[in-house]
Amino acid sequence: MSADCLFCKIAAGEIPARRVYEDDDIIAFHDINPSAPVHFLIVPKMHIASMAQLEEKHAALMGRIMTLVPRLALEQGSQPYPEGGFRVIINTGAHGGQEVPHLHVHVLGGAHPWKHE
Amino acid sequence: MSADCLFCKIAAGEIPARRVYEDDDIIAFHDINPSAPVHFLIVPKMHIASMAQLEEKHAALMGRIMTLVPRLALEQGSQPYPEGGFRVIINTGAHGGQEVPHLHVHVLGGAHPWKHE
Repeated sequence: MSADCLFCKIAAGEIPARRVYEDDDIIAFHDINPSAPVHFLIVPKMHIASMAQLEEKHAALMGRIMTLVPRLALEQGSQPYPEGGFRVIINTGAHGGQEVPHLHVHVLGGAHPWKHE
Repeated sequence: MSADCLFCKIAAGEIPARRVYEDDDIIAFHDINPSAPVHFLIVPKMHIASMAQLEEKHAALMGRIMTLVPRLALEQGSQPYPEGGFRVIINTGAHGGQEVPHLHVHVLGGAHPWKHE
């Protein structure tokens, strides 16, 4: 855990969030400022600042996060593929538009319009 | 391999692409219609239509793809974190804006403006 990290504090239960999933390594919760009818974040509990810090040792964790996406997207109300679906966005660094320096996977779904189409 | 799948044909070498990486399971190549100064796709050679079809058995493959991203992004000219960085986008189904029905991970980087900021 990294001191003063917003998502570390959410993972530790020190700051509330509308949780949609949790296990020993991963937590998912609704984005506080949603850009689409469905918009949640999947976050590793371990503090990893961004995808720039990913190493081979993180492959299993990232693989689990990615295979969780379709299940959670449906549970949260995205429509089935292929008519429905969802978009995954992971922002890294200033050029990527990252706002919180703890790796997080945005999942957006539901009928359009979305804020950033 | 799925007949008439554009990315299966690129993976098989039947359609040319500007490759940036290849191993037994994964191929990466430049987007033919780039939205940013750096814009390439990372694609599993195995035909998986989208993230909607991901199962637990795909976790290792997806983990390897995700941990490849930061290395390839730097090699292709994205600037270092935190001033630089990159954005990962994975579109699934019509709501997600998916255009080719073979799972592909967009990696965008470089100085702004980008086409879809």
